[in-house]
Amino acid sequence: VTRPVNERGPGDRILILVVGDEILDGSVPDRNGSRVAAAVSARGGIVSRIESVGDDAGRIAWAVEAGVKEGGVIVAGGIGPTADDVTREAVAAALGRELVADANWAERLAVRHPRAARLPGTERQSRLPDGARPIDNPGGTALGFVVDAGDSGFVLVLPGVPSELAAMLDGDAGRFLDERLPGSAGPSLRVAIAGVPESVVASRLQDVAELRGVRVASYPQRGTVDLVLRVDRSSESSQDAAALLERGAEGLRRRFGPDLYEVGRRGLAEVVLAELRSRGARLAVAESCTGGGLGATVTSVPGSSEVFWGGTIVYSNDAKREMLDVPESVLRRDGAVSEAAAVAMARGMRERSGSDWAVAITGIAGPGGGSPEKPVGTVWIAVEGERGAVRRYRLPGGRQEVRDRSVAAALDLLRRCVLFPD
Amino acid sequence: VTRPVNERGPGDRILILVVGDEILDGSVPDRNGSRVAAAVSARGGIVSRIESVGDDAGRIAWAVEAGVKEGGVIVAGGIGPTADDVTREAVAAALGRELVADANWAERLAVRHPRAARLPGTERQSRLPDGARPIDNPGGTALGFVVDAGDSGFVLVLPGVPSELAAMLDGDAGRFLDERLPGSAGPSLRVAIAGVPESVVASRLQDVAELRGVRVASYPQRGTVDLVLRVDRSSESSQDAAALLERGAEGLRRRFGPDLYEVGRRGLAEVVLAELRSRGARLAVAESCTGGGLGATVTSVPGSSEVFWGGTIVYSNDAKREMLDVPESVLRRDGAVSEAAAVAMARGMRERSGSDWAVAITGIAGPGGGSPEKPVGTVWIAVEGERGAVRRYRLPGGRQEVRDRSVAAALDLLRRCVLFPD
Repeated sequence: VTRPVNERGPGDRILILVVGDEILDGSVPDRNGSRVAAAVSARGGIVSRIESVGDDAGRIAWAVEAGVKEGGVIVAGGIGPTADDVTREAVAAALGRELVADANWAERLAVRHPRAARLPGTERQSRLPDGARPIDNPGGTALGFVVDAGDSGFVLVLPGVPSELAAMLDGDAGRFLDERLPGSAGPSLRVAIAGVPESVVASRLQDVAELRGVRVASYPQRGTVDLVLRVDRSSESSQDAAALLERGAEGLRRRFGPDLYEVGRRGLAEVVLAELRSRGARLAVAESCTGGGLGATVTSVPGSSEVFWGGTIVYSNDAKREMLDVPESVLRRDGAVSEAAAVAMARGMRERSGSDWAVAITGIAGPGGGSPEKPVGTVWIAVEGERGAVRRYRLPGGRQEVRDRSVAAALDLLRRCVLFPD
Repeated sequence: VTRPVNERGPGDRILILVVGDEILDGSVPDRNGSRVAAAVSARGGIVSRIESVGDDAGRIAWAVEAGVKEGGVIVAGGIGPTADDVTREAVAAALGRELVADANWAERLAVRHPRAARLPGTERQSRLPDGARPIDNPGGTALGFVVDAGDSGFVLVLPGVPSELAAMLDGDAGRFLDERLPGSAGPSLRVAIAGVPESVVASRLQDVAELRGVRVASYPQRGTVDLVLRVDRSSESSQDAAALLERGAEGLRRRFGPDLYEVGRRGLAEVVLAELRSRGARLAVAESCTGGGLGATVTSVPGSSEVFWGGTIVYSNDAKREMLDVPESVLRRDGAVSEAAAVAMARGMRERSGSDWAVAITGIAGPGGGSPEKPVGTVWIAVEGERGAVRRYRLPGGRQEVRDRSVAAALDLLRRCVLFPD
């Protein structure tokens, strides 16, 4: 049963409780809180807080007790087999229930995970608070569960192993949320910008008339900026929401021109691959300072093999000569980080591969290797194809940030060459 | 002034408060909470909770008020230039203070960020609660600050932009924490395992006698497992802590043998590169399904250019033939994902590069491309060098997980070939 949007019961206000000492001491960044929050938001629920606490039964019980008064509580973690996994006990205590073994789960474990089923502690993982409904965990031994708690409150408990949690949100836990939450998020629209610094994006947003009635949130990535458009609370009306967002996006299209690469969900690599695919074109890459990062980003898109030929990681000068015929004279005269080297790499790669397009990156990612003329962050990118381009960048940040920004800059320069033949 | 370890005042119990609507709706995973937690833990502070709340002055003020009663509060986010940045107002309200403009900051902004200084809203970013000490933000326009609040409580406020926050933790904010926290974390020791599933690692830990008095926390990565050893609270005594941990690590060395790749902080790529460097050996890689991910991982280590020659991303069959001379007959008879193809790729790469060692990866990362005989997750990895090896893997997970696990498996197979000549 799904309720219509905006008719929100108390159970729609959700506390997400992430459990684990390893999060509080900073040794592991939490990924589960955000994943659960996205699952709640996508179904129109409102997350009031995400709270991380340690493996401490008192703290967990206290937070659960406070949370169910406001609505739903979703707990991630603390249901493993070891003695410091105390979420089951804490939830039972908070709700004043006994723990009871789930006989089916014990049986299923013996079939699915015969080796684990014999390990000490596994049996504990089939114990649930009295009256709880089990939530299947296809990927692990810890059984999830949900308990109804007064009014429309509930406590949903999931394991802390991110892949198990994700699979359960796609399965039984997701179906439970489908039932209990309003059913859809308020409408939103993503507009993505490349090749423009965030501060400039912000100032260009100032007086776009078409954004009246629309809130714009800005999320800078490394080398791109995501803008998320939502209808202003004051002017909300379910009929014209989509039209308002479409008008806002149209205003941004006009304002940003070729710097806008997507209205929708696709990333930069996906957009570039789609453009190349629609032209029947093939792509090859030649990478020095990014060491394979551009290829890894391109091939992170499923189906990239239709477009992506492959490439070379020419990290050493020897590799640049051997794989791409970059002339020794260029390396000696201009250096490996130079306009001439970038162009020679892109040309060599295009010739070797017979691809329609080739992109080359060469730069100084740091921490070492910089000089007054070529400081860390100096990167040359060249595109060869129907049209060519070569550009120097001065990218901010540490080693990994420079490399990530180089990958985004290369994809963007290629996109502009493919799409805008000026 | 640093206090000795274990002499903990109330200010050592820290609440980390992360502010931003974008975190609660799941559109941006929080990275700041973990970064601040690590900075606190490294200085011997104890994080009691990490809490994410929306851009809501009431919620922020309430949490700050509750937090300062327990000790210190560190707030990340909500001090930008826009109207929904309300952290300054909320903290001032929670502590019963006025907001006062910091004249120095306004002046410094005009020099450092002349364009931003003229934008509307920037002026707000120089306002601080009365009596607050400014915390310099070298990378942005939002001034951080710290306010003393009764006993040893304090409120430290940092911007939400991750790179600005990180720079401040390395600078003024870090120096403030140096003053206020005990000065060092309880001792811990990391022991890292490769090539063994987490459940097997857990069961092998069961009866290691040398672990008496030592707690072991297990953090599975993709293809490796990090074990963090800490001294049991009950048996804590500052003199023999290091000796207890060393004895525990020695027990794990004996138990895990060649599966243990590090006692300390280094990652798998760093360990492999160090071994190759000490032998004066050069490495080249040939990647199909990982698309450059192995090269990107190897070159994420600063100084990798001493060892890493480069490689090829042979994503298409054409690239495998052209760049590595993989015979057409192998591709036709065995297919691109096969023992013969992996070996031919590694041999071709070693010959082309003249490197001492070459590693090749070919597999099916999914979601498409699987078959009953070669399901998604089937990966062949070959090493060629003084010694060679070739192995088939069946890796779990979605596309990115299979690719990440392939990279770890390749580094581990190379490590075993280099280190263990049996």
